[in-house]
Amino acid sequence: MSTSISIFDTTLRDGTQGEGISLSADDKLKIAKKLDELGVHYIEGGIPGSNGKDIEFFKRVQTLGLNAKITAFGSTRRKGSSAHEDANLQRMVESGAQAATLVGKSWDFHVHTALQTTLEENLAMISDSIAYLKQQHMELIFDAEHFFDGYKNNPEYAVSVLRAAHAAGADWLTLCDTNGGTLPHEVYEIVSRLTAELDGASLGIHTHNDCELAVANTLSAIQAGARQVQGTMNGYGERCGNANLCSIIPNLQLKMDYACITSEQIGQLTNTARYISEIANVHMPVNQPYVGNAAFAHKGGIHVSAILRDSRTYEHIEPEQVGNKQRILVSELAGQSNILSKAKEMNLELNPENEETRQIIGKIKDLEHQGYQFEGADASLELLLREANGEFKELFVFESFKMLVEKNAGSAVVSEAFVKVRIGGESIYTAAEGNGPVNALDNALRKALVEYYPSLREMHLSDYKVRVLDEADATASKVRVLIESQNLQTTWSTVGVSANVIEASWEALVDSIRYALLGQQLPDQSDHQESTAQGIVNH
Amino acid sequence: MSTSISIFDTTLRDGTQGEGISLSADDKLKIAKKLDELGVHYIEGGIPGSNGKDIEFFKRVQTLGLNAKITAFGSTRRKGSSAHEDANLQRMVESGAQAATLVGKSWDFHVHTALQTTLEENLAMISDSIAYLKQQHMELIFDAEHFFDGYKNNPEYAVSVLRAAHAAGADWLTLCDTNGGTLPHEVYEIVSRLTAELDGASLGIHTHNDCELAVANTLSAIQAGARQVQGTMNGYGERCGNANLCSIIPNLQLKMDYACITSEQIGQLTNTARYISEIANVHMPVNQPYVGNAAFAHKGGIHVSAILRDSRTYEHIEPEQVGNKQRILVSELAGQSNILSKAKEMNLELNPENEETRQIIGKIKDLEHQGYQFEGADASLELLLREANGEFKELFVFESFKMLVEKNAGSAVVSEAFVKVRIGGESIYTAAEGNGPVNALDNALRKALVEYYPSLREMHLSDYKVRVLDEADATASKVRVLIESQNLQTTWSTVGVSANVIEASWEALVDSIRYALLGQQLPDQSDHQESTAQGIVNH
Repeated sequence: MSTSISIFDTTLRDGTQGEGISLSADDKLKIAKKLDELGVHYIEGGIPGSNGKDIEFFKRVQTLGLNAKITAFGSTRRKGSSAHEDANLQRMVESGAQAATLVGKSWDFHVHTALQTTLEENLAMISDSIAYLKQQHMELIFDAEHFFDGYKNNPEYAVSVLRAAHAAGADWLTLCDTNGGTLPHEVYEIVSRLTAELDGASLGIHTHNDCELAVANTLSAIQAGARQVQGTMNGYGERCGNANLCSIIPNLQLKMDYACITSEQIGQLTNTARYISEIANVHMPVNQPYVGNAAFAHKGGIHVSAILRDSRTYEHIEPEQVGNKQRILVSELAGQSNILSKAKEMNLELNPENEETRQIIGKIKDLEHQGYQFEGADASLELLLREANGEFKELFVFESFKMLVEKNAGSAVVSEAFVKVRIGGESIYTAAEGNGPVNALDNALRKALVEYYPSLREMHLSDYKVRVLDEADATASKVRVLIESQNLQTTWSTVGVSANVIEASWEALVDSIRYALLGQQLPDQSDHQESTAQGIVNH
Repeated sequence: MSTSISIFDTTLRDGTQGEGISLSADDKLKIAKKLDELGVHYIEGGIPGSNGKDIEFFKRVQTLGLNAKITAFGSTRRKGSSAHEDANLQRMVESGAQAATLVGKSWDFHVHTALQTTLEENLAMISDSIAYLKQQHMELIFDAEHFFDGYKNNPEYAVSVLRAAHAAGADWLTLCDTNGGTLPHEVYEIVSRLTAELDGASLGIHTHNDCELAVANTLSAIQAGARQVQGTMNGYGERCGNANLCSIIPNLQLKMDYACITSEQIGQLTNTARYISEIANVHMPVNQPYVGNAAFAHKGGIHVSAILRDSRTYEHIEPEQVGNKQRILVSELAGQSNILSKAKEMNLELNPENEETRQIIGKIKDLEHQGYQFEGADASLELLLREANGEFKELFVFESFKMLVEKNAGSAVVSEAFVKVRIGGESIYTAAEGNGPVNALDNALRKALVEYYPSLREMHLSDYKVRVLDEADATASKVRVLIESQNLQTTWSTVGVSANVIEASWEALVDSIRYALLGQQLPDQSDHQESTAQGIVNH
């Protein structure tokens, strides 16, 4: 039978110390529900003694009926005072949390420098505080702050801190690498010694990513005998972040045969990680291990032909185990196998033997050479493939655009666009202003089309990226524009390339709308004559 | 004495397999120069057999006179053919690179599934290819693809692959964890065994970050006896990326007493990492270990007061060792001291006590809040500080610009700009075309000024970058434009921010020219009247 590891999530407490992360009480409740579904065993909600937001969280979380133990965080009592009079400890008790995480100093240097007290008083602060919280029937996790730095400088004192906490009734002794500077082999050695010396104590591990080793340090501690992991979702946390539970859980469970959560729950990992990044409003790096959008994406040509024969050739696990999926990227480095598998994804039958297929592959490679990049522009690629396959019908024809940006000293800049397109027999000419040149073009083009294709009202541009391609030539060099659009159901991306940023944007804009109209029909002319005329007059 | 570790950078080859990373030949040359200054020992430039861009890189990099060994990547010869007739091997030789990285299969499963050949033929492919490249006097790094998976499945065969490569003359045997699925303790055990079994062979390590363990796996291999590290800057690479040299180098050198590069070079690490992220146009995560903007940022109140007493309380190394710096997020102190130290760099005396200094610091902070970034725009910052100091003289006054982009179906796009400025008592109105809108504006503005300030003929724009700031709002969101300009002596950078890409570009353009004119005087009106009139007629 596998050894069980207890998962202690501190996204809502230590995670919020990360730069740019700020969660309302509502956000915290949503995340707590999601973490509970994932199956973590402890949810550290915040610091009841610090602010009103956390007090509200602790009150409301009790109504959710979660399985996870809700945990409140706080420090040992102040020096020279008593535990039952300490306002912070009181608020931990009043929070209604089932468990308390009590942080105390274990590095003598910190006792002197940060607390400015004696080593003995620090031990008393720890013992008193734990005894008090245990009297109040809370489960107690003792966080030994800076444990590894403390142990390296003064092992006797660091261990005496753990012994004091254990004697006072702490249920877990968590060894914290607070500054993130410890290496995996050091963690392994130190935790192994403690496992032997502190027989009967349950050890936990809390690491930070300052050396890009937080996950490895956690695994080392578990291999050396620790049985609880503190970490955050997506590795949120101060400086370089905390240990990332999204990597630790699958490493422990899928690769090292420890038991953390159920297989069904681990299948929710990707979804949970992305949900939390949405709530926290933090962009998730595409290359994030296990749960990132590129974690199982394949770009190189040789790789792709092997992957299509057998996924194990270039994948260390099945992406579905963590709820992620395989993606085949198309790029200049890739051969025709990428393009063919992309076509297959789109249910397009392309025969690699026939002349048209060779032509379209040649065309795509040529476009990539000119600076187009289809790995971020699936919709533009799909349009090209459907055109090549003869199954694309043009629903509007471009005639001209003009774009004017004007600024006079002391006045705001003005952007206007004038667009002429033909739909069936009609020529439509529209004008619009905008917040910037691309917005003006978008407004004018949409104004021309929306009377004929009302579904366009539901779509909007959701992302806009510009990349200068050959920087040697500065303002005369090429730019690539990527536009992401969305409607109520889905999201798609298109690309445009030109020496002229306005023309490149226009190209991506037009592709976005062509894609949105896939599957629609040219309007019946007579039906629309009146509304067109109206459109021109109204706008 | 410390053991030396050889650093093999593959940012330009394996790094470009990362999603969203695409480098031109020019970009690659700039990065190669910077990597060489950092002191890496090998720079793998690309795959000469794959595309024209890489062939161009290998040709041009020879003229740079770098210290690092330039390395070309390629696969073993095709099955059933001979090495000297293999086009890819030929192109590796013709590239002019000093060293070759030859990748071969070491996992029997891959020999059958991906190569579809016999185990014996695979060994012959490896031996023949190495022998051929060694005859051509190249240093040879043999990349044993999927070595760890191979070793776990069929250790005898995996080791026989290494023996064959060694016997054929390979200088380095690099063990690749291609799928990124191996754990640090497995790496340690396997590499330890190989170090013992393959006495006399030099081992290298190449890991991927699929389990968030690439850095730890690399350290494990070094501790077990490997002496070369393959990795990429910022961990760029396919899926979850390659091993991140920006974390590995300081871990090995500052914490484990191995010798990689000099202390001065490691002091350039942050700067190099950020430069490469700019060239690759990939956003660097703020929480990136060692080199990220938040790597030494402190937010928590208790932390900050302790940090102010002694940095070691919450910092695992001195940030300056890797060229980074401490930031106190809650404190105004950090911002102000940065600006004051910048002013000092420019020989500007700003007194932190006086009201004007407080005003300019407030203004800069406000601009940063709006999206300006002066880290990459020294010249714009200098203009602000000189203005605040009352030592800036405006040599031309903006009155208006108009910018028109026009395209008709079937014709090329046309960009025109109309600029009105005042110089002394004269109002100058010019018109110009350009390759794109910014080029047209640049041409028109220059046309207006160059008759008065002929030194402007010597300057030109050398780089142009656009970044979308708030992607939530798509085309109505803000953009930041960075322009780099140069003349015969120097290079300077300026910034503009607006919801309108044209206005942001104009702002950066105007700053660039204002900076170029620093120290010049308004022309004597009478002298210039004639040439102005001529100027207007001529252009």
